[in-house]
Amino acid sequence: MDKLQDWRQRLYIIIFFTNTPAGQRFDRYLLLTILASLVVVMLDSVDTAHQDYGDLFMALEWGFTSVFAIEYALRIYISPKPREYIFSFYGLIDLLAVLPAFLALLFADAQYLLIIRVIRMLRIFRVLKLTPYLSQANFLLVALRGSKQKIVVFLLSVSTLVIVYGTLMYVIEGPQNGFTSIPKSIYWAVVTLTTVGFGDIVPNTALGQALATLVMITGYSIIAVPTGIFTAELANAMRNDGHHMEHPCPNCAKAEHDNAAAYCNRCGHALFPHRAQEPDGGAS
Amino acid sequence: MDKLQDWRQRLYIIIFFTNTPAGQRFDRYLLLTILASLVVVMLDSVDTAHQDYGDLFMALEWGFTSVFAIEYALRIYISPKPREYIFSFYGLIDLLAVLPAFLALLFADAQYLLIIRVIRMLRIFRVLKLTPYLSQANFLLVALRGSKQKIVVFLLSVSTLVIVYGTLMYVIEGPQNGFTSIPKSIYWAVVTLTTVGFGDIVPNTALGQALATLVMITGYSIIAVPTGIFTAELANAMRNDGHHMEHPCPNCAKAEHDNAAAYCNRCGHALFPHRAQEPDGGAS
Amino acid sequence: MDKLQDWRQRLYIIIFFTNTPAGQRFDRYLLLTILASLVVVMLDSVDTAHQDYGDLFMALEWGFTSVFAIEYALRIYISPKPREYIFSFYGLIDLLAVLPAFLALLFADAQYLLIIRVIRMLRIFRVLKLTPYLSQANFLLVALRGSKQKIVVFLLSVSTLVIVYGTLMYVIEGPQNGFTSIPKSIYWAVVTLTTVGFGDIVPNTALGQALATLVMITGYSIIAVPTGIFTAELANAMRNDGHHMEHPCPNCAKAEHDNAAAYCNRCGHALFPHRAQEPDGGAS
Amino acid sequence: MDKLQDWRQRLYIIIFFTNTPAGQRFDRYLLLTILASLVVVMLDSVDTAHQDYGDLFMALEWGFTSVFAIEYALRIYISPKPREYIFSFYGLIDLLAVLPAFLALLFADAQYLLIIRVIRMLRIFRVLKLTPYLSQANFLLVALRGSKQKIVVFLLSVSTLVIVYGTLMYVIEGPQNGFTSIPKSIYWAVVTLTTVGFGDIVPNTALGQALATLVMITGYSIIAVPTGIFTAELANAMRNDGHHMEHPCPNCAKAEHDNAAAYCNRCGHALFPHRAQEPDGGAS
Repeated sequence: MDKLQDWRQRLYIIIFFTNTPAGQRFDRYLLLTILASLVVVMLDSVDTAHQDYGDLFMALEWGFTSVFAIEYALRIYISPKPREYIFSFYGLIDLLAVLPAFLALLFADAQYLLIIRVIRMLRIFRVLKLTPYLSQANFLLVALRGSKQKIVVFLLSVSTLVIVYGTLMYVIEGPQNGFTSIPKSIYWAVVTLTTVGFGDIVPNTALGQALATLVMITGYSIIAVPTGIFTAELANAMRNDGHHMEHPCPNCAKAEHDNAAAYCNRCGHALFPHRAQEPDGGAS
Repeated sequence: MDKLQDWRQRLYIIIFFTNTPAGQRFDRYLLLTILASLVVVMLDSVDTAHQDYGDLFMALEWGFTSVFAIEYALRIYISPKPREYIFSFYGLIDLLAVLPAFLALLFADAQYLLIIRVIRMLRIFRVLKLTPYLSQANFLLVALRGSKQKIVVFLLSVSTLVIVYGTLMYVIEGPQNGFTSIPKSIYWAVVTLTTVGFGDIVPNTALGQALATLVMITGYSIIAVPTGIFTAELANAMRNDGHHMEHPCPNCAKAEHDNAAAYCNRCGHALFPHRAQEPDGGAS
Repeated sequence: MDKLQDWRQRLYIIIFFTNTPAGQRFDRYLLLTILASLVVVMLDSVDTAHQDYGDLFMALEWGFTSVFAIEYALRIYISPKPREYIFSFYGLIDLLAVLPAFLALLFADAQYLLIIRVIRMLRIFRVLKLTPYLSQANFLLVALRGSKQKIVVFLLSVSTLVIVYGTLMYVIEGPQNGFTSIPKSIYWAVVTLTTVGFGDIVPNTALGQALATLVMITGYSIIAVPTGIFTAELANAMRNDGHHMEHPCPNCAKAEHDNAAAYCNRCGHALFPHRAQEPDGGAS
Repeated sequence: MDKLQDWRQRLYIIIFFTNTPAGQRFDRYLLLTILASLVVVMLDSVDTAHQDYGDLFMALEWGFTSVFAIEYALRIYISPKPREYIFSFYGLIDLLAVLPAFLALLFADAQYLLIIRVIRMLRIFRVLKLTPYLSQANFLLVALRGSKQKIVVFLLSVSTLVIVYGTLMYVIEGPQNGFTSIPKSIYWAVVTLTTVGFGDIVPNTALGQALATLVMITGYSIIAVPTGIFTAELANAMRNDGHHMEHPCPNCAKAEHDNAAAYCNRCGHALFPHRAQEPDGGAS
């Protein structure tokens, strides 16, 4: 019994952590399996490949599903808090990785299951969980979170712009030039403002082209806004690493001071022993 | 009479401010109404939807107009300075929200009224007026205002570039390749310089493609300019945010100090006159 | 005679400078004339407008030419150093503004003269010469000059990339898919890398689309490079305004110190009188 | 014998270094030869030019090959460590510059040799090796290396996004609208997210256009991420350039000082042991 417990414990560390050689090997195989299942999903959607290797692909899909199902069962079995695992974000993703093949048996039109099969990919991020990349990702997330409100304001302004521009184009160009409705004109405004420019709908009247020019210049200029926001936040996050020193004031014990501080700015006491010449050169 | 006054006062706070629960509820309903009226405008422009539900949309439009009219009347009635409100920016927007339905009765071709009906959307910004987002929006506005002159210089240079490039392309490619006039060639230059690239007009001659290459590289490089301007200004605005106070040290004149500083951290002198206990309370 | 000299002097100030009301009025009229001549050039290139108003446009062109010719003659006459003016940058631009109409008399095919007529536009920058915008433009120029070498390295790398990518696409896709020659494939690579994406030439094979994906991701990522270069240079230029304080050391007279310096870092002497508590709290 | 040795030494300096006038002349001629061979490769791929001047181009190609072969042989001969040179990066590039013409004799289908002939271009970077540009390029490389991990996280997120968006579009639009397979839909997602927008495949359903709007807004916003990363790193690299030295003060341990500092500007202590005259030379 104790042996089984021990074995469970070891398996737990291998499967849930990546700081042991065995755990890293497990993660590497899992990563390959996920990528392989992704490749199969993609190739299966290519018509010629589907006709030639459709059966092989289905067999492989069942193979991957079995592997993921066994892994999912194992994770529940060895987890110290199974319920917590099942309802965690990654627990649900793991469940989603197993479902599609079974659901395909029930429903004839398996088209929409494709999306679930692709969402398996999110499991890749679990594998990356304990690598040095995580700290860098956190860095980016901190900067994104810090700029969240500014980005909401920006997106709201952009929405207003595309709705107003889209309506103006609908009125100016009209259905005969491809701007068949306001939603479609707004779609055009987004295509243009974001500088994507598919070219499926284009202005044909002189006035429409003049307005389009304005939309494009707007889009070209305001891309500076999200870039500026994010850059400023990221530079901020990176600067806040060592802007202050940790040197408690000998008088009042205030812990944090500016890097260049000579005196404590709370009690005025010198932070460091000063030069001997002081007595005759200083005093208020 | 005093009761009526009191009731007007309460209504005034609900409608014009958002720091009470009732005021927030009012704003939430208003926001929903504005968005709903916007959706109706958009759907009404879709041909199939207009044919099937045209009457319903018109009824809804009259409904929204009534709500906005009542709200407008109320705002005038309860406002302490009605005249000021009417001619304020939001007062005019509120009036514009009511007009289209009535104007549509007078004019057969209501096409251009669409724009006014969409401008209602600007009322959304009023609802956001007293939220934390406003300070963030102000932040962006400060950075934009700070970079205004630089952006004018940039836009002027871009205008010069697209006019020169457009004329060159008109001369090189000519009407037979779609560059039918200088204004149209300038439109192409804007499409290309802003990296939108619709593809409705494209260079066909070798020389034209060489020049187009130059235009694209230019556009790809100078997008750095507005981005750089805005980022530098925003970083500046965020640094000056209020982490520091401007209070020169009476001894050494150091200008910037932490908001919580009591003593200058350069020379140790008290920043402000201190209480009488000072003489015996200074050193450790 | 002295009166004439006086009159020439006054005209000189009006025409060459903008810090007098008369000079500003002169510049404003000049600006309008330049813009009007530009509009005429553009409208004349529109086929329908040319057929209806061709004669009017030619008359206007002669009118503008006369105005510019008189102005040019005046500038030479009143300039204290005529030779210097004639061969200066703006002197040549002023001459170019006068030439096209006369050259059109000599040459039947006036098509290429259009470019000269548009180059008149550069005269607008002379009008802006003494406004507050100039200092902002200088700011941008300083940042551009500071990043010149980095931008050359960047452009060289981009050139290498588009040549290699273009050749690869030519080999992969070949003439049957529109990639008819290496220069044309390089043109496609520029269109794609700069995210313009006209869509006149697109990859059709799976391998070509895979490579195109790589080109697009490259272009999407490396736009960060010119932006980063310019932003860093501009932030640098803007920061170098007041990073140091000017407070001569009382001992060795060193003039510049860090803003937070308490002691001179050349001779170790205190820069400011220090607190009285020093004697019993400090000393090495 | 000694004379030959001397001659080899001089040739070695001319060919491998650029700090002598002869070496610079050699590099300039080499640069011209490389560019000329590149132009010949490009022109030869243009159908009309190939038909008219095909023989000339082949003769020139053999000429360039001879020059490069002689240069390659010389480099091996004069290099003090020939083996090291042959297997160095530039040694292999030099070999590749010679091979294509010989390989073309062996293989009829010389199409793929084009790529090798273009790779000759990389030799240009050798010529630039010892110019001031190198330090600037190194600057950019340092910034790129510093942001490598963040960029990997970014590219991984973008890959996930385009795969999920691509699959969704495949399910929504389907083969009848041009989204014939998941890989092709992912190609579309990359085209759209990177704001290239060829327009060869475009969404036609309302739902597809709504999702495309989301993809475009995403692409327009997240371009801020690589830009922000690179800008922050570059600004960092430029700030750490060498304005400060890392030499902790022996008294207060302040780490960073001006390059010319003799005393700590926080506590006034000497940073380095001073000459004997110190005791009587300290105070004013």
